[in-house]
Amino acid sequence: MQIETPYLMFLGDVPDRLAAKTAYGIKDWRPEWCVGQVRLPGCAADLGIQDLSLEEAVARGCKTMVIGVANAGGVLPEHWVSEIVAALKAGLDIASGLHTRLGAVPTIAEAAAATGRQLHDVRHTSETFATGKGTKRPGRRLLSVGTDCSVGKKYTVLALERGMRARGLDADFRATGQTGVFISGRGVAIDAVVADFISGAVEWIAPAADPDHWDLLEGQGSLFHPSFAGVSLGLLHGAQADTFVVCHEPTRTTMRGVRHALPTIQAVIDLTIQLGRLTNPDIRPVGIAVNTQDLEEEAARTLLDDLAREHGLPATDPVRFGVDGIIDRLLSEFPPGAGIATVGVPAP
Amino acid sequence: MQIETPYLMFLGDVPDRLAAKTAYGIKDWRPEWCVGQVRLPGCAADLGIQDLSLEEAVARGCKTMVIGVANAGGVLPEHWVSEIVAALKAGLDIASGLHTRLGAVPTIAEAAAATGRQLHDVRHTSETFATGKGTKRPGRRLLSVGTDCSVGKKYTVLALERGMRARGLDADFRATGQTGVFISGRGVAIDAVVADFISGAVEWIAPAADPDHWDLLEGQGSLFHPSFAGVSLGLLHGAQADTFVVCHEPTRTTMRGVRHALPTIQAVIDLTIQLGRLTNPDIRPVGIAVNTQDLEEEAARTLLDDLAREHGLPATDPVRFGVDGIIDRLLSEFPPGAGIATVGVPAP
Repeated sequence: MQIETPYLMFLGDVPDRLAAKTAYGIKDWRPEWCVGQVRLPGCAADLGIQDLSLEEAVARGCKTMVIGVANAGGVLPEHWVSEIVAALKAGLDIASGLHTRLGAVPTIAEAAAATGRQLHDVRHTSETFATGKGTKRPGRRLLSVGTDCSVGKKYTVLALERGMRARGLDADFRATGQTGVFISGRGVAIDAVVADFISGAVEWIAPAADPDHWDLLEGQGSLFHPSFAGVSLGLLHGAQADTFVVCHEPTRTTMRGVRHALPTIQAVIDLTIQLGRLTNPDIRPVGIAVNTQDLEEEAARTLLDDLAREHGLPATDPVRFGVDGIIDRLLSEFPPGAGIATVGVPAP
Repeated sequence: MQIETPYLMFLGDVPDRLAAKTAYGIKDWRPEWCVGQVRLPGCAADLGIQDLSLEEAVARGCKTMVIGVANAGGVLPEHWVSEIVAALKAGLDIASGLHTRLGAVPTIAEAAAATGRQLHDVRHTSETFATGKGTKRPGRRLLSVGTDCSVGKKYTVLALERGMRARGLDADFRATGQTGVFISGRGVAIDAVVADFISGAVEWIAPAADPDHWDLLEGQGSLFHPSFAGVSLGLLHGAQADTFVVCHEPTRTTMRGVRHALPTIQAVIDLTIQLGRLTNPDIRPVGIAVNTQDLEEEAARTLLDDLAREHGLPATDPVRFGVDGIIDRLLSEFPPGAGIATVGVPAP
């Protein structure tokens, strides 16, 4: 799906910031797309941008109203439905991260049909994918992988996108999760794709590109997570990753939602290379990204120095210390211009 | 889903046997459930069982009419729709392997609602799964794995079920594909499950059981297949396989649908053990199953002897030479009574 930008951010009347986590993520990474917000009476979230009426939003060029909030119980409350219908009538598309499909609510479906506006359900996909082919395609691809779920994989590639673009490099964040799809305006939440099409969907998300173009793919789960390793493997194969960054959260004792111990960073590097070789024989790591928010700065720097030495890779906390070291390594491992060789120039 | 048995087999007016492949598979493995068939004028398939009217089928105890045929173009032809509606009115449930959902055809949906009969779409699932937990559960589990897709994984576990039951062992085939679901009357086509829930669905398909009970799980794809390795890995983790049989087709030169070379049997054994250990540290192989239909008997026996010697495992073609050697090995590796230890008996 391609979501038209810029956005009007709908916050409803959520009881706290956490319920609007997706909206804050969009605002953090795409402030230029977040023209204004709609808050209903009692709303406890505030993106710090202007409150706009639907008419004002349209006048300022908004194309889509984004519902980046979680509602209790999974049912769309009636007073949200009427606001959504009003937005459609005002000329806005709607993009929603709710479990409930917008089109499953008859009054919303009717209003969309009557106004000719689009409904995007980011948790679902109407896209039909081919199965993955594993055929080498031009362009460079980096995948963030992890020792676990929720260790900063999305944040790491978004930070890389920002840093690489600042150096004039041609790089695009490629979303594989709900918040990421809003941030990129495109992509597929992999957890909405049927099992047989994981790697095919990733080939679609990160298609053939210019030899020096970098797709920065948001990883999911972990090859060592008993619930999600299949998703992580399909992502790795579909990405045909040239390189990867290992993301880690040092205070975690067991993997999220299960009782399994965390793998070591070295184990993740080794298995990612071993399995990734199936679709890219030259895959190799360029860095380690650690979420150090629970450590004092001194302890964080010591940990990162130790990891860098142990693995021979730049190690950083992207939020605290930036990603320059990883970009430097990326450019030395994959110098611009060298990518052309991977396209397969025909013999003279 | 649980499909009520026995079945009335609907063959429609398919132009050849291949279009009724699923129906033949059900008839081969569950002849006792296939009470009769319905063939429309022009039908080129014949299961060799009695042609019955809907009323005769109901009188003989049929509970479900099974649509185990592929229709051209994916659209349900009008003359099939009227037969399906008539079957519902006669008192039969309908189970379909078609891409089109039965309930998406208004006249079928209305007839099902009016008669209170069930519609089963085997390619789709309305079941909600939890994510896999990777927690050890009692009971024994064998998974068929492969060097590729379509190398006899379903056939191998069905042959094992038949052979083990003949020896009085407690064993159940567990389906993960469309034809398998009809054969077991239960299960989930894994290619209908959303990516995040592969291993969770497999935990549901093969739940906790008596310590000496064997679930014989139909594998899918291959850990080495660039399109489907994620599915194969989720299956392996969800199965928590105690053991596995490697299935192979010796004349194949590239993996199905892609240009990748086939892995060796040894590579499949090694990677299955390496990755399977995440949810079952004691995983080990008990046999090799080879589809030798393209080889003369002498050549087939030589190949199997060589493979058995090379890998130190029983190697057989389940169709040609049976599965006794694999069952012998299974019983010596996992003697009945020993399984009780895995349940975790509380200390006195």
